[in-house]
Amino acid sequence: MSSQLKGNAVVGQSGGPTAVINQSLVGVIQGVAECGHIDQLLGARHGVRGIVDEKFIDLRKASGELLERVAQTPAAALGSTRDKPDAAYCERIFKSFSKNNVRYFFYIGGNDSADTARIVSELAKKEKYELRVFHVPKTIDNDLRVHDHTPGYGSAAKFVAAAMMGDNFDNKSLPGIKVDVVMGRNAGFLTAASVLARQNPSDGPHLIYVPEAPLSEEKFLADVDRVYTKQGRCLIAASEGISKPGGVTWAEAMAEHVERDSHGNAQLSGTGALGDFLADLIKRKLGGGGKKLRVRADTFGYLQRSFPGFVSQVDASEARRVGQMAVKYSAQGEMEGSVAMKRLPGGFYSIDTFLTPLSSVAKETKHLDASYISDGNNITEAFVQYLKPLVGELPKVGSLDEIK
Amino acid sequence: MSSQLKGNAVVGQSGGPTAVINQSLVGVIQGVAECGHIDQLLGARHGVRGIVDEKFIDLRKASGELLERVAQTPAAALGSTRDKPDAAYCERIFKSFSKNNVRYFFYIGGNDSADTARIVSELAKKEKYELRVFHVPKTIDNDLRVHDHTPGYGSAAKFVAAAMMGDNFDNKSLPGIKVDVVMGRNAGFLTAASVLARQNPSDGPHLIYVPEAPLSEEKFLADVDRVYTKQGRCLIAASEGISKPGGVTWAEAMAEHVERDSHGNAQLSGTGALGDFLADLIKRKLGGGGKKLRVRADTFGYLQRSFPGFVSQVDASEARRVGQMAVKYSAQGEMEGSVAMKRLPGGFYSIDTFLTPLSSVAKETKHLDASYISDGNNITEAFVQYLKPLVGELPKVGSLDEIK
Repeated sequence: MSSQLKGNAVVGQSGGPTAVINQSLVGVIQGVAECGHIDQLLGARHGVRGIVDEKFIDLRKASGELLERVAQTPAAALGSTRDKPDAAYCERIFKSFSKNNVRYFFYIGGNDSADTARIVSELAKKEKYELRVFHVPKTIDNDLRVHDHTPGYGSAAKFVAAAMMGDNFDNKSLPGIKVDVVMGRNAGFLTAASVLARQNPSDGPHLIYVPEAPLSEEKFLADVDRVYTKQGRCLIAASEGISKPGGVTWAEAMAEHVERDSHGNAQLSGTGALGDFLADLIKRKLGGGGKKLRVRADTFGYLQRSFPGFVSQVDASEARRVGQMAVKYSAQGEMEGSVAMKRLPGGFYSIDTFLTPLSSVAKETKHLDASYISDGNNITEAFVQYLKPLVGELPKVGSLDEIK
Repeated sequence: MSSQLKGNAVVGQSGGPTAVINQSLVGVIQGVAECGHIDQLLGARHGVRGIVDEKFIDLRKASGELLERVAQTPAAALGSTRDKPDAAYCERIFKSFSKNNVRYFFYIGGNDSADTARIVSELAKKEKYELRVFHVPKTIDNDLRVHDHTPGYGSAAKFVAAAMMGDNFDNKSLPGIKVDVVMGRNAGFLTAASVLARQNPSDGPHLIYVPEAPLSEEKFLADVDRVYTKQGRCLIAASEGISKPGGVTWAEAMAEHVERDSHGNAQLSGTGALGDFLADLIKRKLGGGGKKLRVRADTFGYLQRSFPGFVSQVDASEARRVGQMAVKYSAQGEMEGSVAMKRLPGGFYSIDTFLTPLSSVAKETKHLDASYISDGNNITEAFVQYLKPLVGELPKVGSLDEIK
């Protein structure tokens, strides 16, 4: 364990919002207040962008009452960024850090942000600038390697499960075919969460499609036709990142122009095009011969990541804790790392945190395990067991079918 | 007041789901249990369709515990229908009523359902079949004439306000232009509810477009450009029913084929096309000259009407109450009517119910009062005062901008 390094700290937030990302920010602020090894805690406006532009706010000025409200507010309170620093950008980051005597950097984000933290940390070493860099995880995608799960996921999963639960009753009350498109570019964790909507055997979602299980048009249509013929209705959860056998995504295959961000990621959210395409495909291919099908599509959109007042309590408290632990690790003389969670053995759910190297989390994403997927259109009980404790209580519902 | 008529009762649900439509169903069931003038209470599966097909369930068999869960479950527990009975259909309704000695009919629905109730009631008179028909209001659109407001609206408004509140923070954290399409074919009440998302002066939605204020492409683009230039971001709430000067809706102007239901209503929900069209329009017209705009669209979709576990408590209890009152009015010998609410004078919000003729509510819809709309792109404080008590508590949020 190294000695304590005196100086200031910067905290920043990056990437897509979550409903609990500010719990982690408040965790960092509380950790700094508790540990006492850091002089000033500067909040960088809009992530690395705020560092190079020296747009900082003094977080000591925020009252406890305000911080508790901020903690309950979705989306990065400091502002976020999609900037991915290259070497020249990093030079400017050090210049800003050096000028402000910043020796600790806490970066709250997903795998792209962990990669940014890794680059900054490595360049700091090369420049012999003593800097301790900690990644505080957040992503609704739940796709960080090494991490059992990530803050932000439980709340998004709760939203998706409840939304799908409501839509199951909607679809049951006015039967038809309904497609719901769920976020998740590469990983199907969020789409898979729709499985929790099922309470009774006939409940939807009847079909769940994740990016990890390549899906042909033929299989998709045959699945829908089979469920609709049997049940007179069909509720479908489809990830925005579903792909065809061969690897190209449905969205890419369909779109003439796919917008990409600075990380090279295709823009799949913020548009209803995939859902409308799937609905139209069903109408065209299964609605023939005078058969009039009622087919609708919804794209759950940004609500999945930033709906307020409906978070998972487990998720909220874990998000707070990983922020606090990042500061504690830094106080213990740790040099760098991503604050990860692991489940403790025993009959009930509990977690502990540990530090994993930034490089073990950066860039590449984790995928749904094959054991969580069945028949290319369903999610297994093993996944339900994995997910349930992260989501917590779901709304109580009932059906008149329960009358004996 | 007429004498009490002995016989059975049918309760049915119709039209689009709401989050509290089953509160009204349970209100009817409780009213029947309390009043004692009705022999059997039959639940018609899928509205008038279940009556003609004689698909009834005996609602006495449902336990109190189940009914409380059903009350909290979105979308018609009995099943809904879009069928609009003509004379021949009504003949079949009487046949079913007569066969089952049905003398009371409670129909839970919107203005189309009130019209169905009116037709059934009038044909019953013509046929000299003694039948007492009561309309129990529900619609997220809040567009029933005579009614101060309708059950279902407060909960949908709460969902829209919270969703927009979250999206405001999302948009602030990753600035850009965001279009959110809200339900409301003819009336802007639900879209107008997005005004409650504003807590601070810079908060969105910055522009609110309702069907009642015709909107040209030129005004729309000039509004967005002005807000974006000033604030560096722009959050827009647009009703799915926004129309051009002259009357044609944007969705109709845009769509090659518009699907219509049996009431002649165009299908505007269950597709992301309008949002995508508006986002694309902004990109094309304001993003020229190398200016790269980040424009996204979400369509809130069915979640607005069937998201569970996030209802307005006022709305839930009023929905229960109008169901109970329908039965009470029938016990008092009333012949027909729609159970409406009016606000009582005084410093705090409270309501009373009254019975208004079915014809006063049927078919035609109510629109947002002109005093609630300003500049063709905003909602007034008068509307905020009207709306607030119907929605109740919204999530507590906070911004670091509040640091002095």
